[in-house]
Amino acid sequence: MPTVFASPSSDKAELETGSAFTPRFDSNGLITAVVTDAGDGMLLMVAHMNAEALALTLDTGIAHYYSRSRKSLWKKGETSGNLQSVVEIRTDCDQDAIWLKVTVAGHAATCHTGRRSCFYRTVAAADGQASLDIVDHEQHFHPDEIYGKN
Amino acid sequence: MPTVFASPSSDKAELETGSAFTPRFDSNGLITAVVTDAGDGMLLMVAHMNAEALALTLDTGIAHYYSRSRKSLWKKGETSGNLQSVVEIRTDCDQDAIWLKVTVAGHAATCHTGRRSCFYRTVAAADGQASLDIVDHEQHFHPDEIYGKN
Repeated sequence: MPTVFASPSSDKAELETGSAFTPRFDSNGLITAVVTDAGDGMLLMVAHMNAEALALTLDTGIAHYYSRSRKSLWKKGETSGNLQSVVEIRTDCDQDAIWLKVTVAGHAATCHTGRRSCFYRTVAAADGQASLDIVDHEQHFHPDEIYGKN
Repeated sequence: MPTVFASPSSDKAELETGSAFTPRFDSNGLITAVVTDAGDGMLLMVAHMNAEALALTLDTGIAHYYSRSRKSLWKKGETSGNLQSVVEIRTDCDQDAIWLKVTVAGHAATCHTGRRSCFYRTVAAADGQASLDIVDHEQHFHPDEIYGKN
């Protein structure tokens, strides 16, 4: 039976300590998902899920998202082979974000650039300007070979 | 000189590999911020920043957010004493999310419930229903004593 989510309670205590998972989707019907490596805790990506993606994730154990750019359900890794198996799902105090601990198949790369994590750059500010520094250069696959040339 | 952010490039390669930090705020002027403990990597919270909060965070080294419920700038920990000192900031491939590694002062608690992390509950689904299980009960402060009774 596919998982269906009940509407969130208006009672703060119920949201924070009750036993029902009632995700608070935003006005676009989406919830933020933070994805970390179940092994070492590395932050891999941040994405969004609609109710369909969240239910599929819970029911299949494979992470599904909603692609805001493509406006469609997105089974992460379907093209690249880098599927994410969910080890644990958590939610936060007000149930408007979820945290997935996953193991990544295939190239063990989450970012479409071929890197392990989407967060491969640090941010620094000086003299009123903010700049980036790439701290993870290692690409586990070549995007052109996986996704084709744009 | 306060940090000011340039507009994001429409060039994907520039966004992904360029040296300018040009955060992609959403239609509400917000960017998602993932916050982890700089020590052990534990996910502490997910919040949002507007340009003012992001610039203040970069310029002061203390995490500032935008409270969507209060519709105002939010210096995290100002009431509780649990200020967040930023050790590192990263952004993701398309610059629409940021990751803060922080050390937490005061009670070493991030969640307003007094817990170390807002993600104190696991989610599981069975028979079409999704339920929650509290896995971190430890409260480092009593909310009533910090915030007053509601």
